[in-house]
Amino acid sequence: MIRAVLSVFLVLAAVSSTFAKYTPKTGRRNPQTLSRGWGDQLIWAQTYEEGLYWSRSRNKPLMVLFHLEDCPHSQALKKVFSEDDQLQKILDEDFIVLNLVYETTDKHLSPDGQYVPRILFVDPSMTVRADINGRYANRLYAYEPSDIALLVSNLKKAKKLLKSEL
Amino acid sequence: MIRAVLSVFLVLAAVSSTFAKYTPKTGRRNPQTLSRGWGDQLIWAQTYEEGLYWSRSRNKPLMVLFHLEDCPHSQALKKVFSEDDQLQKILDEDFIVLNLVYETTDKHLSPDGQYVPRILFVDPSMTVRADINGRYANRLYAYEPSDIALLVSNLKKAKKLLKSEL
Repeated sequence: MIRAVLSVFLVLAAVSSTFAKYTPKTGRRNPQTLSRGWGDQLIWAQTYEEGLYWSRSRNKPLMVLFHLEDCPHSQALKKVFSEDDQLQKILDEDFIVLNLVYETTDKHLSPDGQYVPRILFVDPSMTVRADINGRYANRLYAYEPSDIALLVSNLKKAKKLLKSEL
Repeated sequence: MIRAVLSVFLVLAAVSSTFAKYTPKTGRRNPQTLSRGWGDQLIWAQTYEEGLYWSRSRNKPLMVLFHLEDCPHSQALKKVFSEDDQLQKILDEDFIVLNLVYETTDKHLSPDGQYVPRILFVDPSMTVRADINGRYANRLYAYEPSDIALLVSNLKKAKKLLKSEL
């Protein structure tokens, strides 16, 4: 009996603590993730400044991925990208990663325009690797879901760091 | 019997789909949230550029909150901040919100230094409201957990928009 009363009490406590928190008029939302579905196990930088800082201090290249939640090309790439174990492993172990749904003020990150999806690499020496690109001449930094092998090969290129000019 | 076999099959399918995804050597991680614990129900901007864009297009002031995960003052403020329903409601309905663990390149966001926790408001006219501050003369934009009422009153100040110079 005591156990039953305690259970009811615990359930009530749990319910009341759930309801004590602010709930939007439109109902409870799922908390937003920094990964936005591109790899929940990766440690994502929040901003370009943060990504550059980590890249320099850990001497790892930075991958900047521009996308949009309502772009079907971004969504299609995201599915393959997030499910590719080899890609996710290399990114986790050897890269600083950043995904953005807004452009930055650095024009070097849009060498041929501000389309999505678009993937740029930045060397720890702070050089944007405009030389590492995909297979589309009119959108050099775009990747399709079928280009994952090329993207993995580009990651390996980006891992070979440029010599610092210092 | 068929139902039992089906159940086992479904469980196995669920387990294998869990294990098919990339797992870091150090074990599975909880996905990072954009709220970082400052209000899971709020819709957070990821970057300052994004926050400014939303502020202008929705004509709502932007709150920029600088903090650090390993700063005890930030943690203490976060607890009170995230649990205050009135504060969370005003932020959700009348503000664009951004929390950052790295500084931006805009010096206007650090009028008296780059300490944490630090809260600045930006009017939709793109003016940093350096006139809206807390109670500490040496750190004008710092708030302690006991300053939540002052912070709510400052939100009301920030809601009175400046006249656009256009």
